[in-house]
Amino acid sequence: MELLKVDTIASAREKLINIVQNSTLHTICMNLLSAHGYILSKDIFSEEQVPAFRRSTVDGYAVISKDTVGASESMPVFLEVIDEIVMGASAQKQIHSGECVYVPTGGMIPEGADAVVMVEYCEMFDTRQTAVYISIAHGKNIVLEGEDIKKGELVIKCGTIIRPQEIGALACLGITEVDVYRPWKITIISTGDELVLPEHKPDLGKIRDINSYSLYAQAIRHGLEVIDLKVLKDDELLLKQAIIQAMEQSDLIIISGGSSQGKKDVTNKIINQVASRGSFTHGLALKPGKPTILGYDENTKTLLAGLPGHPVAAILVFELLIIWFWKRITNQPLEKSIFAQITSNFASAPGKMTCQLVQLIKQGNQYYAEPILGKSGLITTLTRADGYILINQNKEGINKGEVVEVFFI
Amino acid sequence: MELLKVDTIASAREKLINIVQNSTLHTICMNLLSAHGYILSKDIFSEEQVPAFRRSTVDGYAVISKDTVGASESMPVFLEVIDEIVMGASAQKQIHSGECVYVPTGGMIPEGADAVVMVEYCEMFDTRQTAVYISIAHGKNIVLEGEDIKKGELVIKCGTIIRPQEIGALACLGITEVDVYRPWKITIISTGDELVLPEHKPDLGKIRDINSYSLYAQAIRHGLEVIDLKVLKDDELLLKQAIIQAMEQSDLIIISGGSSQGKKDVTNKIINQVASRGSFTHGLALKPGKPTILGYDENTKTLLAGLPGHPVAAILVFELLIIWFWKRITNQPLEKSIFAQITSNFASAPGKMTCQLVQLIKQGNQYYAEPILGKSGLITTLTRADGYILINQNKEGINKGEVVEVFFI
Repeated sequence: MELLKVDTIASAREKLINIVQNSTLHTICMNLLSAHGYILSKDIFSEEQVPAFRRSTVDGYAVISKDTVGASESMPVFLEVIDEIVMGASAQKQIHSGECVYVPTGGMIPEGADAVVMVEYCEMFDTRQTAVYISIAHGKNIVLEGEDIKKGELVIKCGTIIRPQEIGALACLGITEVDVYRPWKITIISTGDELVLPEHKPDLGKIRDINSYSLYAQAIRHGLEVIDLKVLKDDELLLKQAIIQAMEQSDLIIISGGSSQGKKDVTNKIINQVASRGSFTHGLALKPGKPTILGYDENTKTLLAGLPGHPVAAILVFELLIIWFWKRITNQPLEKSIFAQITSNFASAPGKMTCQLVQLIKQGNQYYAEPILGKSGLITTLTRADGYILINQNKEGINKGEVVEVFFI
Repeated sequence: MELLKVDTIASAREKLINIVQNSTLHTICMNLLSAHGYILSKDIFSEEQVPAFRRSTVDGYAVISKDTVGASESMPVFLEVIDEIVMGASAQKQIHSGECVYVPTGGMIPEGADAVVMVEYCEMFDTRQTAVYISIAHGKNIVLEGEDIKKGELVIKCGTIIRPQEIGALACLGITEVDVYRPWKITIISTGDELVLPEHKPDLGKIRDINSYSLYAQAIRHGLEVIDLKVLKDDELLLKQAIIQAMEQSDLIIISGGSSQGKKDVTNKIINQVASRGSFTHGLALKPGKPTILGYDENTKTLLAGLPGHPVAAILVFELLIIWFWKRITNQPLEKSIFAQITSNFASAPGKMTCQLVQLIKQGNQYYAEPILGKSGLITTLTRADGYILINQNKEGINKGEVVEVFFI
């Protein structure tokens, strides 16, 4: 019985973890300036204190806080200015009771001082003395040595997607090269006698190939590398040769074929012939996305995925299985999502998970999710969508007002 | 009075709109395959119907639905199979009552047929006839001509960030080149006698430059182009020359200097000398972010921004003003945000807007936002953050349990 073989999303994901494991994963060393968006493949520990010396957070006078006790607008304290710190220079003089030193924002705090009074609260009395009109607490306006990052501290965790702030933190530690996960090398093959390239005008009965373009963009979006893009006729031998050739260099081969049963059987047959582990998922209990095949070759360490021919289903399955798996093995935190109230009742497919596209509407402090209607497979349902929700196979639908979790697409 | 000149975020934004307008904006034509992440600069209307012909969404028999009235598992209707549609071929024969044609998923529906019966509900009776075991409704399993996209329809709006699905929709319309906004060309200048390049070990009193690295990454993150990156000593003439030179090729010049008042005065002075419109914002009522300067030169159409030297303030002001303005003039929809409950009371700065970093925690159907404590300016407050919230100047703080809007950073 064909139906019994169909996998749920959860079981397909589990098979990916158990069968493919981390075999497709490699690391590379990147120059920090080019590392934005890549995923850190090692924990980063600090070998230094940041800052390396006590710094002022304001323009002002470094003082001994006890000296300012009782100072007020009507009753200033007078301190002797014994030095002025120049930006980038180290503080040479130690201060003693009754003394102070001018320090610019970011400047080094001299020995002996334990607080900085902002210039706004001071007034030069003569060339050597300043009046301080405020009483200041110990530690005020000072960043301590190691207060930002301590030597030996875990600064950034493996699996972090490198953002501008991570680049900044690494730069300040002097780490200008980082180990990141090498993006998967992907070959995308779109098959079908009905397909013409997008730049051509199709004859009646033919259509332009969408999937090679949209899957290419989706791979790029998630930081992956597409090394080859092919549109092939429905020819078993041709497809088999293309797959064998691609296995040599690819971590992942995407075969997006028509959705008819006959075509899927051909993809499945080839995967069973060329990949040592054969196909381990043949059919998904997902709407849309049933005609999905997953296979694996242990020799070349290549994951093979037969995606539905329908452009919408292809994009969703790529997201729910392939990108999910990439994020999982690279230790990435799960995707950000939004909770929203559904604006109208709708039914889901019984016995399988339904992936429903929605549009998000923000009103006050609340998001609303409006289901996008229209036959599945229409590419415009996806261009109108902000995200999708997943409805469990044992639910019959969603009622208006229910809160759902929306994932961006 | 210096204080009177300080702008709120809202007034600084309004000045950007009124003074700089769209002058820094240009469009370029991109190959569709490279257009992911760019922003469409024109509305896209369809010149075709999609699909161009009626297509089947299943493998099955195209029929006249009336012929199946009354058919059931125990009482099939027998229809004559007069043709089989091959993928990519046009349907040649028209069907009449009592006839049907085999059509694969995606295949063209022959004239006369108005529904498709899935193969699962049919059985070949002899070589010419099939038994149909189900009564089917008009239109079932058919996508009509133009049902996805109608000729003349607005398919994608100007200002849309091109995602995989937009690339797919454009590909299926045969649009393989698109007009997009040319990313701003940006020069980033980091100034300070205390700065050394990240690859060097700083002497006592000196620190590694963070801002040129993190602002570079932030520009890239938002699809902008950095054409030059400089770290300069605090030297008025040197800085002035660098700015004048950069104005020739840049749409935007970022000058990130120390945060001390004296340095800011130099940046302000230079902007007033070299830019025809001078500086129009000098100080922001924002914590952190006060030492911010905005200026504009009408001749070279260059926006000049002096950002705070503090790495955290620099990133936040870049996001709140510069990236906000880029999104605004390119018609982009506003950023996605998340509503979350604050986990603890905290105070904000009176008289100015506070930008508070938070960490997001997901629990059940709810997000919680935990304020990140620590002195402002510590780069690790930003690496620990998922986003920020903005607290209005007339609020004194946020109470535990209040719902806030979190923007990703």
